[in-house]
Amino acid sequence: MSPLFTLTTDFGASSSYPAQLKGVLLTAIPDARIVDVSHDVPAYDVVAAALILEAAVPWFPRDAIHLAVIDPGVGTARRGLVVMDGEGRRLVGPDNGIFTPFLGRGARVHALSEHGGVLPPLRSATFHGRDLFAPSAAYLARGGTAGALGPEVPDPVLLPWPTAVREGEEVRGLVLCPDPFGNLVTSIRGADLGGASVLEVDVAGRRCRFVRTYGEGERGELLALVGSGGRVEIAVREGSAARLLGGGRDFQVRVVLGRAVPP
Amino acid sequence: MSPLFTLTTDFGASSSYPAQLKGVLLTAIPDARIVDVSHDVPAYDVVAAALILEAAVPWFPRDAIHLAVIDPGVGTARRGLVVMDGEGRRLVGPDNGIFTPFLGRGARVHALSEHGGVLPPLRSATFHGRDLFAPSAAYLARGGTAGALGPEVPDPVLLPWPTAVREGEEVRGLVLCPDPFGNLVTSIRGADLGGASVLEVDVAGRRCRFVRTYGEGERGELLALVGSGGRVEIAVREGSAARLLGGGRDFQVRVVLGRAVPP
Amino acid sequence: MSPLFTLTTDFGASSSYPAQLKGVLLTAIPDARIVDVSHDVPAYDVVAAALILEAAVPWFPRDAIHLAVIDPGVGTARRGLVVMDGEGRRLVGPDNGIFTPFLGRGARVHALSEHGGVLPPLRSATFHGRDLFAPSAAYLARGGTAGALGPEVPDPVLLPWPTAVREGEEVRGLVLCPDPFGNLVTSIRGADLGGASVLEVDVAGRRCRFVRTYGEGERGELLALVGSGGRVEIAVREGSAARLLGGGRDFQVRVVLGRAVPP
Repeated sequence: MSPLFTLTTDFGASSSYPAQLKGVLLTAIPDARIVDVSHDVPAYDVVAAALILEAAVPWFPRDAIHLAVIDPGVGTARRGLVVMDGEGRRLVGPDNGIFTPFLGRGARVHALSEHGGVLPPLRSATFHGRDLFAPSAAYLARGGTAGALGPEVPDPVLLPWPTAVREGEEVRGLVLCPDPFGNLVTSIRGADLGGASVLEVDVAGRRCRFVRTYGEGERGELLALVGSGGRVEIAVREGSAARLLGGGRDFQVRVVLGRAVPP
Repeated sequence: MSPLFTLTTDFGASSSYPAQLKGVLLTAIPDARIVDVSHDVPAYDVVAAALILEAAVPWFPRDAIHLAVIDPGVGTARRGLVVMDGEGRRLVGPDNGIFTPFLGRGARVHALSEHGGVLPPLRSATFHGRDLFAPSAAYLARGGTAGALGPEVPDPVLLPWPTAVREGEEVRGLVLCPDPFGNLVTSIRGADLGGASVLEVDVAGRRCRFVRTYGEGERGELLALVGSGGRVEIAVREGSAARLLGGGRDFQVRVVLGRAVPP
Repeated sequence: MSPLFTLTTDFGASSSYPAQLKGVLLTAIPDARIVDVSHDVPAYDVVAAALILEAAVPWFPRDAIHLAVIDPGVGTARRGLVVMDGEGRRLVGPDNGIFTPFLGRGARVHALSEHGGVLPPLRSATFHGRDLFAPSAAYLARGGTAGALGPEVPDPVLLPWPTAVREGEEVRGLVLCPDPFGNLVTSIRGADLGGASVLEVDVAGRRCRFVRTYGEGERGELLALVGSGGRVEIAVREGSAARLLGGGRDFQVRVVLGRAVPP
């Protein structure tokens, strides 16, 4: 099968930048399969980018190569990276934390040499997506090794990645990001609930009803549920929790657990 | 030729949800051809979705499989469907009326069994696009039958689908939806004019000039014409009729006909 | 390799129009590779479209066919065109100036006959993208010649294409367009600086610091640099120059040069 690439950027769907990147890939690999994850990641928002990658990447075939270019530090000393995660997935982009969800056990990380080596020389100082990351991804797709692109990196940048904290029967966490429906994705995973029933969920001091799916809510009612990415979400049926609460990111979330539910 | 899928959703182009769906399709069918119709259907707007499908689907090869996920009722008792319309086109998505334009003569409809059967078990209660509809579409693309996915459904949900009413020399209808240019697409089809000349067109009590194409208008002038989808549209040359009229959906439209025009 | 098409339109990503166009291409050429450049060009903005094409087209393989449909004059006497530029690239769309950057030395231009000839009859008066340009592009992709589509055109429409003016040590130009980050792309090319050092850059009377890349700026500081498309840009690190300056298009830009910099 021909090489498969996914693209995740903050370039904006109205710009020519995603197309320039695709042109480079198709010039190198004419039969490339290219899938847009999104080009509308909020500009410079590395946390949002990391969450989108965390949600999307696992659904693709294992041999896909994931290009991610949310790159406020382009042209500075920040490194470019090839990440191979513990499952053998490959991701290419800047070393600014966007790959945090993939840098756990078994991950191997290489820097990308900007100068010389196996890639053509840089064409600009401001568009590494086109001039460094896409050529590196194409090089990998043609069978090149990460080691030939640059030295191994022991200390890639990691975002402070909020998790859930359990104290007795309470699980506490944070809202990470709203999705485009205004659902608030939190740092609490379904697995953090440990199979227990849920007695209460509060966000920013307001009570939510815990349900299995959006459709169980009344219109306008604040809901909590385990969303499709496995994280606890705050939602409003056919509405926007982000709008109802006037924001979202970093809001405190508290779940009070009851007895374990038999499976 | 490899299977062709189209995607129509309200997930938002800035979300990871369309990519998750594509990942599932490409995992099942590595050489799938996937075309985005739109991921920016207004959230939960089943009428807008039905109109977009009505406009787009007929232009694709007959053997394409059309996935449509505008799904406010996900996780409730609403059914999932496979529709085969009278022309042999296949559409997969929720049973909430979005397939109304394809449910006329000769259509056959099957429910999708969520539990067991030929598909893997559901991975979530909130993302049937990824967990039920995409796997069903992939199953069909590999030669599976709708009958194996679930029982035939005699009563799929139908939207009240406004049509044109003719009284003497008048044809009356409604604005259905604005398009992104602010053109107001109406429930009156070009065919409803019966080959007659058009003497007058009014929308919300304002007179429009009937023309053949946008470019015949003066700037700022309210126009009526038969648009590229075969429906009467209200438009402003290089402007937005929706903005000029302060809205659009459900506005009354009246066409007064003259004599038949020789072809 | 199968034919490669790129699409650049102002149809809006929420409309069905891009999909209709793709359906026509895939019906004619089932194995077509189709790349979206953008469907969010500002409506009717031929200057923005020309700049996007100028930036994107050179990065694609030489044999790609570029469809561009920003077409306020659809249905009027404006012609449709096939452009073959001096490098052998092919572009198809309306004759309204969007192809200005490709109409230099060696370009050959043919009109598209709307009536009869090698194409099917028009299906509408308002959607030449679907009914004229896409079928023409498919005809070319199957080996048809531009000459069979219509007569050669000696006088395609050219936009007044602002360039840089040099007076002594000053280079003067204009802001052409903001990009989605709010960077202001100007009519001054890096090459217009003639290898000299840059002493000063002013835009709309405000001083910018000339840098090599965005990351060298302080937050909120107005910067000038040679961008990835080879043009001088006005930018703000992790911010928007368009917002800071309250606009952009047609703002005056002045660069004061110092001595030549040894390469």
